[in-house]
Amino acid sequence: MTTNHGPRHVVVTSIDRTELDLVDQLAPIGTATVHEAIGRRGYVGPEIRPIQQGRKVAGNAVTVLSHPGDNGMIHAAVEQCRPGDILVVANTAPSTHGMFGDLLATSLMQRGVRGLVIDAAVRDTADLREMRFPVWAQHVSCQGTVKNTPGSVNVMIRIGGQIVNPGDVICADDDGVVVVARSEAAWALQQSNARLDKETATRARLEAGELGLDFYGLRDKLAGMGVEWVESLDQP
Amino acid sequence: MTTNHGPRHVVVTSIDRTELDLVDQLAPIGTATVHEAIGRRGYVGPEIRPIQQGRKVAGNAVTVLSHPGDNGMIHAAVEQCRPGDILVVANTAPSTHGMFGDLLATSLMQRGVRGLVIDAAVRDTADLREMRFPVWAQHVSCQGTVKNTPGSVNVMIRIGGQIVNPGDVICADDDGVVVVARSEAAWALQQSNARLDKETATRARLEAGELGLDFYGLRDKLAGMGVEWVESLDQP
Amino acid sequence: MTTNHGPRHVVVTSIDRTELDLVDQLAPIGTATVHEAIGRRGYVGPEIRPIQQGRKVAGNAVTVLSHPGDNGMIHAAVEQCRPGDILVVANTAPSTHGMFGDLLATSLMQRGVRGLVIDAAVRDTADLREMRFPVWAQHVSCQGTVKNTPGSVNVMIRIGGQIVNPGDVICADDDGVVVVARSEAAWALQQSNARLDKETATRARLEAGELGLDFYGLRDKLAGMGVEWVESLDQP
Amino acid sequence: MTTNHGPRHVVVTSIDRTELDLVDQLAPIGTATVHEAIGRRGYVGPEIRPIQQGRKVAGNAVTVLSHPGDNGMIHAAVEQCRPGDILVVANTAPSTHGMFGDLLATSLMQRGVRGLVIDAAVRDTADLREMRFPVWAQHVSCQGTVKNTPGSVNVMIRIGGQIVNPGDVICADDDGVVVVARSEAAWALQQSNARLDKETATRARLEAGELGLDFYGLRDKLAGMGVEWVESLDQP
Amino acid sequence: MTTNHGPRHVVVTSIDRTELDLVDQLAPIGTATVHEAIGRRGYVGPEIRPIQQGRKVAGNAVTVLSHPGDNGMIHAAVEQCRPGDILVVANTAPSTHGMFGDLLATSLMQRGVRGLVIDAAVRDTADLREMRFPVWAQHVSCQGTVKNTPGSVNVMIRIGGQIVNPGDVICADDDGVVVVARSEAAWALQQSNARLDKETATRARLEAGELGLDFYGLRDKLAGMGVEWVESLDQP
Amino acid sequence: MTTNHGPRHVVVTSIDRTELDLVDQLAPIGTATVHEAIGRRGYVGPEIRPIQQGRKVAGNAVTVLSHPGDNGMIHAAVEQCRPGDILVVANTAPSTHGMFGDLLATSLMQRGVRGLVIDAAVRDTADLREMRFPVWAQHVSCQGTVKNTPGSVNVMIRIGGQIVNPGDVICADDDGVVVVARSEAAWALQQSNARLDKETATRARLEAGELGLDFYGLRDKLAGMGVEWVESLDQP
Repeated sequence: MTTNHGPRHVVVTSIDRTELDLVDQLAPIGTATVHEAIGRRGYVGPEIRPIQQGRKVAGNAVTVLSHPGDNGMIHAAVEQCRPGDILVVANTAPSTHGMFGDLLATSLMQRGVRGLVIDAAVRDTADLREMRFPVWAQHVSCQGTVKNTPGSVNVMIRIGGQIVNPGDVICADDDGVVVVARSEAAWALQQSNARLDKETATRARLEAGELGLDFYGLRDKLAGMGVEWVESLDQP
Repeated sequence: MTTNHGPRHVVVTSIDRTELDLVDQLAPIGTATVHEAIGRRGYVGPEIRPIQQGRKVAGNAVTVLSHPGDNGMIHAAVEQCRPGDILVVANTAPSTHGMFGDLLATSLMQRGVRGLVIDAAVRDTADLREMRFPVWAQHVSCQGTVKNTPGSVNVMIRIGGQIVNPGDVICADDDGVVVVARSEAAWALQQSNARLDKETATRARLEAGELGLDFYGLRDKLAGMGVEWVESLDQP
Repeated sequence: MTTNHGPRHVVVTSIDRTELDLVDQLAPIGTATVHEAIGRRGYVGPEIRPIQQGRKVAGNAVTVLSHPGDNGMIHAAVEQCRPGDILVVANTAPSTHGMFGDLLATSLMQRGVRGLVIDAAVRDTADLREMRFPVWAQHVSCQGTVKNTPGSVNVMIRIGGQIVNPGDVICADDDGVVVVARSEAAWALQQSNARLDKETATRARLEAGELGLDFYGLRDKLAGMGVEWVESLDQP
Repeated sequence: MTTNHGPRHVVVTSIDRTELDLVDQLAPIGTATVHEAIGRRGYVGPEIRPIQQGRKVAGNAVTVLSHPGDNGMIHAAVEQCRPGDILVVANTAPSTHGMFGDLLATSLMQRGVRGLVIDAAVRDTADLREMRFPVWAQHVSCQGTVKNTPGSVNVMIRIGGQIVNPGDVICADDDGVVVVARSEAAWALQQSNARLDKETATRARLEAGELGLDFYGLRDKLAGMGVEWVESLDQP
Repeated sequence: MTTNHGPRHVVVTSIDRTELDLVDQLAPIGTATVHEAIGRRGYVGPEIRPIQQGRKVAGNAVTVLSHPGDNGMIHAAVEQCRPGDILVVANTAPSTHGMFGDLLATSLMQRGVRGLVIDAAVRDTADLREMRFPVWAQHVSCQGTVKNTPGSVNVMIRIGGQIVNPGDVICADDDGVVVVARSEAAWALQQSNARLDKETATRARLEAGELGLDFYGLRDKLAGMGVEWVESLDQP
Repeated sequence: MTTNHGPRHVVVTSIDRTELDLVDQLAPIGTATVHEAIGRRGYVGPEIRPIQQGRKVAGNAVTVLSHPGDNGMIHAAVEQCRPGDILVVANTAPSTHGMFGDLLATSLMQRGVRGLVIDAAVRDTADLREMRFPVWAQHVSCQGTVKNTPGSVNVMIRIGGQIVNPGDVICADDDGVVVVARSEAAWALQQSNARLDKETATRARLEAGELGLDFYGLRDKLAGMGVEWVESLDQP
């Protein structure tokens, strides 16, 4: 690079996706379990919230890097979407614009896209819920947008506290959004299933009245850290 | 004005309202469409959120300017309300007090008021939902209030990022609250209906698979702004 | 105390609870009414929100003081819980970790615990709603936790803007969480019932069209504070 | 208006300014006094903070309405500035972009502009302080901007909680920014000077040990509101 | 208590203060050291910030519980202040009003008060710095206040995350505000001095190049928690 | 990886640093210029603020990934630091703990470290300023920490909106913190110097009264975007 007139803007048209078979098996597991199973990683943070309740989806990330309040690049991204994808939109700075509504959702559903994750706002939320197009967003806002500033599609982006590369698996449910790197998807599924099994066994023991305190060996560990069991605070 | 002992406090008893026929036609259109149709104006911002889901209302603004945590002026405003009104309460500084609950809602419903917009908190939210009295508020909070400080009713107020004059049209739904100036209401309705027609046509084309990229002429525009379509990032 | 190696960490195993009969009568009254009845006190603030809608509970506080992102002490607290309790978890500094999920809820339900109040996040929220275990939390987050740092159970804690002692009554509903000191519970019930009666009478009069302005004697009071009733702002 | 292609964008080239003689007399008074003197109005709110300490300025508002992260319209505004002006920049939605730096300040100083008020961020803050160009901004941020989206110059804008019309007086100091409407400037100066006199007299009495409690007649007023003076809380 | 017409409002005129000799010895130690020395307690939190730099004070708390935006009770509190006191003002709900300025500071300085801690805003900050009256506040704001709503003086209050009783020691410096209970003041001084000695010794060793890793025995502790030292991440 | 017991925790002892000669040339340029020169990238965002004024530094990143409120890993990182480094500490979730103070600064200065960047709080800020150890932090807080939970040193971290790899260049001044990837450092220096030259030339022209409107060719561009120059808003 010998000249620099601002950042380069590209739409990458050919990306490697995670096999849909893997993606589909990750979907029902739930974000908390996947996050925990892969070593407490991948969670984008509590600011990105669902606008609906009770949906649990997974899909391949098609990524958008956008200027705040400008949704031109989202339109460019639609063309790159395939069945099984989830559109992930990050802005170059915080934004509360309503960058996405029912018309863009119509386009995405027509292409088999499974949902939207965005670090700005969406609008037409009643329609989106009725259309059953699931959305995870940072805000809800009417505020309209323009189509004037270039950005990129299918480049590495950061959303909340996470990096998303095109083709990574996006898992999303009522707890929020977790990113699984494409290269780790198979391992993540294996780990998650193992954890599901463990959780099932644990749940049965807890339901039977066993205590996590004993179950996880915490009684001694806490005592070793200086925790004292006393009848009252006046006790020496 | 030759003397000044603080701001003047008034209850204006005679205000010009927007014709209810216009108001009623604006109600079902939706805030995002109205906001967009009038030139992306009037949206009070994402901090004012509905406490219920699925309501879509419009009404004439009766305005209240209040001291934080003091709801005496809301009681003064009730008397000024008529069927078809929406009460809009702004505070002189940020407030998280629960300034409004089921008793005030009972009074407002008895007078035919269609809803409340407030930049503080409300309480009794379960009751308000059951009564089907729709509310858009900045917070939910139990915190009780006093009735000690004067304010005004039916003066110009600012709520979120917007100015509201008494008799302006308040449109509110799941996306938030949009203000339409009384003088622009007829034009706003015409613009909104035109936009609805356009959106219907657009939706049909998008459902048929046409892309917004082509539809809005964005392909050339983005290229002109320097966006390049490449197969991969390694491409020159 | 002659030495100091950091704060003392204790699990207090014997606490005085409020009689469940009192607790159960407080539950259906609603937090706004209880808060108002005891002199506008006890509300923990608008940051602690329910993850579900339509639940109204009361219980005896079992308290936890925890390091952010570390849920070891919650496990220690489970053992101290009895039927009729509500677990109240405060952190030594702000936290957005998902410190509580469906497994801990399973344990608490097994012990007859009625709900959770926490100034951090919870996860598995879809499961918690399905299990009908009610939660009031500051955030929802997947972010997993560790079990490495000591804390205390059944000591005085602060949550939101309130102090909670073990055995205090926790009232929680859609408006948030109110704390009633154990020593005031009987009086609080009496005051709350008196207020309920008064509210019922008031509601009837408001439904009949009487104005709060007259009802509360506000017309003269506001005029005395300088509020003027004018037909328009141009009026002198 | 029969068509609508989004909001109209204008640069208004001829505005009425407040006489500089009035403006210059308002400058040294201080924002808190002016705000109080005109009836507790005009304060834009605590989010707009100075990036320097100890400056106290007043000037005629030249206003900019801008898209977040796009400073093209600030350049358009420079041409409209004259000696004695203060540039006031509002965005159509919240922004943390660094929309202004030392080069724009160089231009503004060259034209005799006295300062900047902006509801987004500025950068080059060390340089701005060294140049002694005073700035009141919502954030400090490096984040660069584009010049792609139209806006307006010298139209009515809202910044923080206030409306600013071109030619209004902007007063700014360490406490923040206060707006005085052009039509009220002479009256505001008169009121402010009267208040300054009163404050001087009050200060002398307070320095002599007189209490505000007596001075403002609060002893009886508070007692009338139910405040009791007691030796201890155990006192009946 | 058989009736309840809202909370009781009192000005407690006779409070027990901490000996000034103890207070004066706590002042120069610094809040971080005191907080750490008493078991990591007493810190009111990062929201309460100094408006000046380089001041380090301690004093006896005179407390105020106030309605947001109403400073009548601050005037009532002035009368209760003595040399060596620090005024601590808490509001019943969040407030950004400028509840305190140079006139009240004049009164307090006249009475020998050493500073102000408030969970709302102050104004006249340039004057306050020039008068060298130190303030720790949550906001700076011009926004004026009223004197209409009763509150209390010298009752237990909560500010940030801490409880303050009248006569407790308030320590404040550039890091914020720490509360030391009156009953613990002598012990706190002893602990703080012990810690100061220890810190001096530690500083000398660290300056000599010794590592905290060795000094605190962390090398083994971290390894025991699973931390591995590796040359690169590719290492097994 | 066939098993997973939570994330792996490592201290990487051998990292590639950027040549100090390059680093030292980047230091005086200023973050805004570097950020702009490399294509508006690398800025960590406006939440990470300096605790001092007027410092401008650059250094090689030594990175720490830490549990909130636990500074054990910072001690582990000290040993990995060399002259010319800047310590960059990221937490696995938001934290307001005072994780760093004058003792750790003593150690770092002893090793020639040039500063600290942290997404939590620091304390002893008066001392840090006096020691002239520069810090960029998200908060200032007394709140003490523990040393109980493992983390990592010299792994890839995210701070604010940026990724930092060990050995990347950290540039920091009054505007905040910018990250330059090690692989881009030489190019970044070249670009930044080119931009500095351009800015110097631009400044001279602006000082001579030339307008950015003409200079950047904005007059036609804005007109092309629909901006109209009008004498007044009444103009058609």
